[in-house]
Amino acid sequence: MSDRYAFRLARATLAAEEAGIAGLLVTPGPDLLYLTGYAPLPLERLTLLVLAPGRDPVMLVPVLERPAAVASPAAEGIELLAWSDGEDAYEAAARLLGAGRFAITDQTWASHVLGLQRATESCSFVPASAVVPLLRAVKDERELELLTAVARAADSAFGDILGAPFAGRSESDVAADLAEALRRRGHESVDFTIVGSGPNAASSHHEAGERVIGDGDAVVLDFGGRAGGYCSDITRTVTVGEPAAEFLKVYDVVRRAQQAAFEAVRPGVPAGEVDRAAREVIEAAGYGDRFIHRTGHGIGLEVHEAPYIVAGDATPLRPGMTFSIEPGIYLPGRFGVRIEDIVAVTPDGAVRLNEATRDPCTVA
Amino acid sequence: MSDRYAFRLARATLAAEEAGIAGLLVTPGPDLLYLTGYAPLPLERLTLLVLAPGRDPVMLVPVLERPAAVASPAAEGIELLAWSDGEDAYEAAARLLGAGRFAITDQTWASHVLGLQRATESCSFVPASAVVPLLRAVKDERELELLTAVARAADSAFGDILGAPFAGRSESDVAADLAEALRRRGHESVDFTIVGSGPNAASSHHEAGERVIGDGDAVVLDFGGRAGGYCSDITRTVTVGEPAAEFLKVYDVVRRAQQAAFEAVRPGVPAGEVDRAAREVIEAAGYGDRFIHRTGHGIGLEVHEAPYIVAGDATPLRPGMTFSIEPGIYLPGRFGVRIEDIVAVTPDGAVRLNEATRDPCTVA
Repeated sequence: MSDRYAFRLARATLAAEEAGIAGLLVTPGPDLLYLTGYAPLPLERLTLLVLAPGRDPVMLVPVLERPAAVASPAAEGIELLAWSDGEDAYEAAARLLGAGRFAITDQTWASHVLGLQRATESCSFVPASAVVPLLRAVKDERELELLTAVARAADSAFGDILGAPFAGRSESDVAADLAEALRRRGHESVDFTIVGSGPNAASSHHEAGERVIGDGDAVVLDFGGRAGGYCSDITRTVTVGEPAAEFLKVYDVVRRAQQAAFEAVRPGVPAGEVDRAAREVIEAAGYGDRFIHRTGHGIGLEVHEAPYIVAGDATPLRPGMTFSIEPGIYLPGRFGVRIEDIVAVTPDGAVRLNEATRDPCTVA
Repeated sequence: MSDRYAFRLARATLAAEEAGIAGLLVTPGPDLLYLTGYAPLPLERLTLLVLAPGRDPVMLVPVLERPAAVASPAAEGIELLAWSDGEDAYEAAARLLGAGRFAITDQTWASHVLGLQRATESCSFVPASAVVPLLRAVKDERELELLTAVARAADSAFGDILGAPFAGRSESDVAADLAEALRRRGHESVDFTIVGSGPNAASSHHEAGERVIGDGDAVVLDFGGRAGGYCSDITRTVTVGEPAAEFLKVYDVVRRAQQAAFEAVRPGVPAGEVDRAAREVIEAAGYGDRFIHRTGHGIGLEVHEAPYIVAGDATPLRPGMTFSIEPGIYLPGRFGVRIEDIVAVTPDGAVRLNEATRDPCTVA
């Protein structure tokens, strides 16, 4: 087993011990990939890694998937137990667990958690994010390199899209161009290509529709994907032709809010303070009730993960944490502006992983 | 709301009533897409459609995602309730649910099901697959067209790969060719490209690795993806150069087993009988203990869904059901053979959606 996975498994087991839980239960998805390098599809057959303080790691796998598990990077340091079609996988898991309070991967399927509850009498379960929320939050050097590379690839895709025609084409057409640019710039998969034009730009989670983009529209472009397993996520807001004065005023507020949040980042600062820094700028400009979401989210193997940059969150920032800073102002029925960069916490502040310009850009 | 979604919502609510449950709880994923046409990403914020007998459909959504939900095909017939960051979404859901036993989407995140359990006192939850397993099992005409089209696209990709060089290249290289062929033939995404050569062909869930394919190897190719939202999944086993006599003997057994299972399909037959038909042929040939998995799985918006073609399953087949028939024989350390087609149940039997040849094929 590589040192990387041995270290992560040991640290996760220690975190479980410190949290006072009987163990950490990990199912297929980003947590399992992070801890073991093993990436089976999350399916209806139970795969369960059990990390319990004082015991060696053990993983229950469908017998069909045993060869793939054996071949995975961390298999050497994990005891593998296989169950066959026809056996009750949850009974097999119950025998491994014994009793106590266990944290389980947030994304574990309901069918699995309900199966474990049925088969166990003296076990209780809580979402891992509530107990060991920061399992993957502090990135190592290699992870920071991958996150930087994928952020730069997204920056390049933004550069490409500035040259595409917008007016007279649908949001979906521009979204297809964006997806192609992301792939051309090295993304192995494209996860989202939000193109919100005109009044759709005022909907912070609008994706891309059949609306035809018109002259003078503001267009929110929020897009990302994966390379090397790590995620990109960037937002820029452009205008078709010259922007109106009110757009520029709102744009300036959002940009100053984004910068204020960036400058608030340093080790030890609670995540909620970064949200507050952005929110104060927007409130001072009179748009407080039009900034309707949190300021950001962690990013890594998942596009949304801890830490969350949300009002009142006391999580102290630590060097190596990576997250988005993405304040926005949304004027229903009219237009919206959002500017988003991924940043990494450094020993004395933060660096932006995205370098695409934050100046107002126009498209044709 | 289109008739399609109104019909599906009404039928699902009726199924919940017939199953004697207080309601069906649907979270983002294939069930929600099927019932409403709404396809948000499954994320940490709760989105929950509640279908309760005697009440109109109601959906709880994050306030951020309200505009997207409003714009979705079925929104007209669903009451939308939005919750904001900072509110407890599970408390909001609890007020909607009241009391009783609810079925919940299998793929619902553990964090959501544990959150609902925390916020409710008089509710219990069971996986939807245990109560209304056949929600999406019977396909309508449009679904059958999409499944046929994507199956034919996978057939064409198989035809393409027969012309690719195998010997001297790694499994991963051939897998990359397969992925490219799937895309070229109209797949919008590629979900898996299993290439198991030589001894790896004996591992039924091997994916594709760095093993260099050699002359005389058997190679299991099991691949699929999506077009129009619906999944393909096909397996063929080829040999590099002329096959050995033992390979041809095993191949013939698997092919006859696959045909026997196909001929066993007709309305009213229990799913387990289709498994039995394949298993009998393989047992009679003396390979019973080398057929280590079920015979098949339903397919539609998901690559694995109900009905499952597994020993003892009493689910009566119905016209419009679609599933794989994929018996295999695996000789550890030596080679393996699997042949898989997607079939659809018709009023008087079955049709194969895949038309790629099942004759033994050789590659170079």
